[in-house]
Amino acid sequence: MSDLSATERPRHRRLRENGRTDRTALYEVLRAGFVCHLGVVDGGVPMVVPTVYGFDADHLYVHGSVASRSLTTEEPSDDPAADAIGSGSVGQGPGTAGDTVCVTVTHLDGLVLARSVFEHGVNYRSAMVYGVPRKLEGEEKLAALRILTEHAAPGQWDYARRPSRKELAATTILAISLAEASVKVSSGPPGDGDGPDAELGLWAGVLPLATTWLAPAADPLLPEGIAPPDHIDGRAGTRLS
Amino acid sequence: MSDLSATERPRHRRLRENGRTDRTALYEVLRAGFVCHLGVVDGGVPMVVPTVYGFDADHLYVHGSVASRSLTTEEPSDDPAADAIGSGSVGQGPGTAGDTVCVTVTHLDGLVLARSVFEHGVNYRSAMVYGVPRKLEGEEKLAALRILTEHAAPGQWDYARRPSRKELAATTILAISLAEASVKVSSGPPGDGDGPDAELGLWAGVLPLATTWLAPAADPLLPEGIAPPDHIDGRAGTRLS
Repeated sequence: MSDLSATERPRHRRLRENGRTDRTALYEVLRAGFVCHLGVVDGGVPMVVPTVYGFDADHLYVHGSVASRSLTTEEPSDDPAADAIGSGSVGQGPGTAGDTVCVTVTHLDGLVLARSVFEHGVNYRSAMVYGVPRKLEGEEKLAALRILTEHAAPGQWDYARRPSRKELAATTILAISLAEASVKVSSGPPGDGDGPDAELGLWAGVLPLATTWLAPAADPLLPEGIAPPDHIDGRAGTRLS
Repeated sequence: MSDLSATERPRHRRLRENGRTDRTALYEVLRAGFVCHLGVVDGGVPMVVPTVYGFDADHLYVHGSVASRSLTTEEPSDDPAADAIGSGSVGQGPGTAGDTVCVTVTHLDGLVLARSVFEHGVNYRSAMVYGVPRKLEGEEKLAALRILTEHAAPGQWDYARRPSRKELAATTILAISLAEASVKVSSGPPGDGDGPDAELGLWAGVLPLATTWLAPAADPLLPEGIAPPDHIDGRAGTRLS
């Protein structure tokens, strides 16, 4: 059993080298999910929290309330360094590496079952984004919330009641540049099919995984006669990733 | 759209308070997946990498090669502080908070579609484990690799060729205590079914997600006539989480 990344490090390196230009691969991974794992440093300790995200050509937008609970700089300012969410506890000033977060999006595609335990692994697609988050306010926050909502639940921005001023104020959205991003993809059969272990006569291959939307389940408090709209009902049976 | 954790913070608090004793909830979340997101601090910057895991009553076992690439303390010693994987770059000595990692396991159960954008959210189960990892060696590493392999691919430890001494030496397994763990669970319909937004007459409910094993796909290099064993074939069509 190798770790997720071990088998594909060469490809990772290749993509990392091309990372700034290979945007298509990055967008594909980001498009295939709506929950990321956001890593921050809090008092010198890493904290990894799942949260929803959306993105546009240049930025990832994540809900940041959990991550920002323990963070110090709340308000944006004209000083880009001060805009950074500072961990405030690793002995580094604002705007330094200590303010950087890491956002990872991972889709599991299957389990790679090899002839040897050592060659076992996972097929997956993963994107990793490093950046100094900027806390959005006002129109910029509203626009990002729309992107994030439409990414997770396409059609709901126009269908549901939009946020009031108070609700928007209670929402934290962080923008993170996509400039520092890498993509790792592992796919295909195990690698020991042409080695000595092939002689063992063992079955080898991939057990694929699929994440699928099921039929919508109505809120028990919903009155009779309100059917789910097409933009919701139409997702049932389709693959998320 | 609220962030994953915002809607369930009270329940999180309750579980966190009971965290040391509510092991059942923790084990249930850990049992329902085999890939975690491991967060480490590397030069003051968080790094979040997906990796496979297994567990027993007291420990999580994770593949650590990517996370340990940039770490300094490689060999175990009699000094527990020196056993810690030190990030070596946040200005803290071994055994301090700087050595702690965070492992998060998240299962997505569905999208919560409310009457208002603000009440949208995600149903999920998540476990978060904090600890100072210990790099395993020898028999302890072999035992942990067996646990990890059997967790991801039950039956493969006895079916596939087990690791040679050289392969085991090339494998990094980290043990992390489950003593500092919390579980967050969000489930059920949106929360605005009995508020003023219920008058809007909009559909509301949950769009569930299911992650399912598909039929095994044989390695193209596999000779004819080798069928997948029951412990692999029998998973097809079952839910992962």
